Amino acid sequence: MLNTIGVYGLGVMGSNIALNMASKGERVAVYNYTRDLTDKLVQRLEGQTITPYYDLEAFVQSLAKPRKIFIMVTAGKAIDSVIHSLLPLLEEGDLLMDGGNSHYKDTERRYDELKAKGIGYLGIGISGGEIGALTGPSIMPGGDPDVYERVAPILTKIAAQVEGDPCCVYIGPKGAGHFVKMVHNGIEYADMQLIAEAYTFLRIKLGLSVDEIADIFDEWNQGELKSYLIEITAEILRKRDDITGLPLIDVILDKAGQKGTGKWTSIQAIDNGIPTSIITEALFARYISSLKEERMAAETILAGPDEAQQSLDKQAWVEYVRQALYMGKVCAYAQGFTQYKMTSELYDWKLPLKDIALIFRGGCIIRANFLNVISEAYQEQPNLANLLISPYFAEKVKVYQTGLRKVVCEGIQSGISFPCLSASLTYYDSYRTGTSNANLLQAQRDYFGAHTYERNDLEGVFHTNWQA
Amino acid sequence: MLNTIGVYGLGVMGSNIALNMASKGERVAVYNYTRDLTDKLVQRLEGQTITPYYDLEAFVQSLAKPRKIFIMVTAGKAIDSVIHSLLPLLEEGDLLMDGGNSHYKDTERRYDELKAKGIGYLGIGISGGEIGALTGPSIMPGGDPDVYERVAPILTKIAAQVEGDPCCVYIGPKGAGHFVKMVHNGIEYADMQLIAEAYTFLRIKLGLSVDEIADIFDEWNQGELKSYLIEITAEILRKRDDITGLPLIDVILDKAGQKGTGKWTSIQAIDNGIPTSIITEALFARYISSLKEERMAAETILAGPDEAQQSLDKQAWVEYVRQALYMGKVCAYAQGFTQYKMTSELYDWKLPLKDIALIFRGGCIIRANFLNVISEAYQEQPNLANLLISPYFAEKVKVYQTGLRKVVCEGIQSGISFPCLSASLTYYDSYRTGTSNANLLQAQRDYFGAHTYERNDLEGVFHTNWQA
Repeated sequence: MLNTIGVYGLGVMGSNIALNMASKGERVAVYNYTRDLTDKLVQRLEGQTITPYYDLEAFVQSLAKPRKIFIMVTAGKAIDSVIHSLLPLLEEGDLLMDGGNSHYKDTERRYDELKAKGIGYLGIGISGGEIGALTGPSIMPGGDPDVYERVAPILTKIAAQVEGDPCCVYIGPKGAGHFVKMVHNGIEYADMQLIAEAYTFLRIKLGLSVDEIADIFDEWNQGELKSYLIEITAEILRKRDDITGLPLIDVILDKAGQKGTGKWTSIQAIDNGIPTSIITEALFARYISSLKEERMAAETILAGPDEAQQSLDKQAWVEYVRQALYMGKVCAYAQGFTQYKMTSELYDWKLPLKDIALIFRGGCIIRANFLNVISEAYQEQPNLANLLISPYFAEKVKVYQTGLRKVVCEGIQSGISFPCLSASLTYYDSYRTGTSNANLLQAQRDYFGAHTYERNDLEGVFHTNWQA
Repeated sequence: MLNTIGVYGLGVMGSNIALNMASKGERVAVYNYTRDLTDKLVQRLEGQTITPYYDLEAFVQSLAKPRKIFIMVTAGKAIDSVIHSLLPLLEEGDLLMDGGNSHYKDTERRYDELKAKGIGYLGIGISGGEIGALTGPSIMPGGDPDVYERVAPILTKIAAQVEGDPCCVYIGPKGAGHFVKMVHNGIEYADMQLIAEAYTFLRIKLGLSVDEIADIFDEWNQGELKSYLIEITAEILRKRDDITGLPLIDVILDKAGQKGTGKWTSIQAIDNGIPTSIITEALFARYISSLKEERMAAETILAGPDEAQQSLDKQAWVEYVRQALYMGKVCAYAQGFTQYKMTSELYDWKLPLKDIALIFRGGCIIRANFLNVISEAYQEQPNLANLLISPYFAEKVKVYQTGLRKVVCEGIQSGISFPCLSASLTYYDSYRTGTSNANLLQAQRDYFGAHTYERNDLEGVFHTNWQA
């Protein structure tokens, strides 16, 4: 009996996707370039309909035609060499899927190359880490809609399910799936940094213990901030170190790493004129964190403010911090969804913003109740210019700006840095400034570079001889 | 008699460079792909030693060997086609120079291609706009040092001269010259935005008239803020519109444009892990400015703070704004020079930071007295980790942070956005935070993605099973 789908690449993600598909009734052929990972998966099997192959040709021949193969190898050149090795074994109408974190431009190049050869190609963003891959990730497929339809039954059943809906929806042409996953990761960076800043306020400014802060995060997780990241932060704060007995958080070195997708998000935004200051500040915060030795030295050299600190009312300020975190999140998601909207218009992708918010509700790292409200905003106004101006969020931030403004000012007066909360506020205030100071920039550019300017009262392009 | 140097491309920059070289005693051959621009230059001639050619071969043949040709055409593909058309006419040992705003990676590709053919290639950053090109720009040459030596006598005499020193120094290998020019433009964006934010505070928060603000800028231009950009801002603010009689600034549309180099600066920094939040916020400020219609709509929807505004003491606050602007500049230049330092280490370029500051003192847009102090900081400590920790600036910001903190907080409480001043402060406070909240980011990353972490008390790489 032929296998219904193949998985090439048996790292943790590939193995778990294979197990997930088998548990949903697929007959899965699996293959890895080296034997060790295949053997490792075989040892985990307990009667699942998964057949290991140690020969690439046998693997391909075991698949029902037209064949469907999930490539689950590290993004980059490895994908190209896997495709290259598979091509001689495939026939027109077969279908390859890349489930890794590929750059969407690479996906578009591969799509074009394979399309010319009659092979279907889907770039599939998958979020949820290893556990999500096994039990139900969020899935973002991009490519030809008719090609997607051929694997939609499989993808929708292995995806996370939220309120009966699968967290998998057709995203758009060519690289659109990997693009949406990329920006998801940028939003994730901002969300994590905002939580870290809220934690800093509670810990340093309010002087709370890690256990007290864990309780606060648990409480927040009962309300409108309910989300995976808030939930795990509470768990993290409760964890004790086996070696020292200290809170584990306190022995972890404060140098944050990053993989490619977060920085790709900022680069794509900058390259295309899209304002994503909060997402980018989150990236810079990681970069500055990696300069640990410089920071340690600078701490002894650079002075902080010398104003005396007032003690703060705990109950009132915990609520201000909650408001600040919520509003920071709204602003960060507004930037991420603006990146979707502007890029969608640029490439004519027609990204389904409403559905993207819905599939983020399960499986992925940024899953949160909050995404229901975002989805509803786009359902009401599919062409919404910015999340902030939707009636729900406009009303929310009208109130919550109080907390955000207070927290950022308190940080400034205390010499504590809140880069993402600050960027959220400047983004909010910049976006609601109808008449800005960019006229001065235009005057300067015209003065020194004859770049010309427009007027606010007349049509046309103008240049002034400023020194006359 | 043969010509000593050729200029290919007779737009404003090329023509003015040709006139500048002729005025310094060079015999200049000039050529343009179309006849019109050559004719236009010929009409400007008043006996200068400039000879126009309408035939490319004649132009090349008119040059003394080994030949030296300045290419002054629009950056991008045009450079490649000019090189392509010149190549068959050149001989080994000849030398091409690209004086446009080329991306340094393109310059490196061209350098490698020409090097293989025995043709010298210099990528030369030139700053100063059309007037600078004519009367003395700031010049940043990159390529082989021995190749540079052959044109050093010409380049140093056409450059701006400050206190007897030419604003031209050998920058480093291959694309280093164009790289330094690129980051110069990023710094320029930040400097302009910081000035615009200072202007906003004076205009909106202090309620001063444009003439009063012009007077303040003039006064600032007598002190440590003395710079070209401050000087022209005062002139801009005094200019009246011929049509309406209003201050010209008030009829200019607040949508700021940008050319490629500013965005390339941020992209290069992000791609290489370099924190340049202020420079990047300046870019985002321009992007948000271009969403004029959205901002106009958002202004009617999104609420500002509802706290009553206090009236501010004019004299005290003008000084706070001056301090804020100065400290913002220090932070922005610290980021730009960090970008030089980190990139120099990445490519082993050995960029001469002290000299780069010196050549920025004349000709270019960011020319300022301030650059003398920066140069001195690097003279005292060539391996200075960050400008902020140099004794001079550390002492300065110790005092001036008062103004910066007050101005940013006042903006936050009033709902006025100061993205670059805010980013300066978060950068300053982040950089001087020895122990940050990045441990929480690492814990989260290890929780959901098994990304591992380091500890602050033990060597090694650790992973925790957080749910156990």
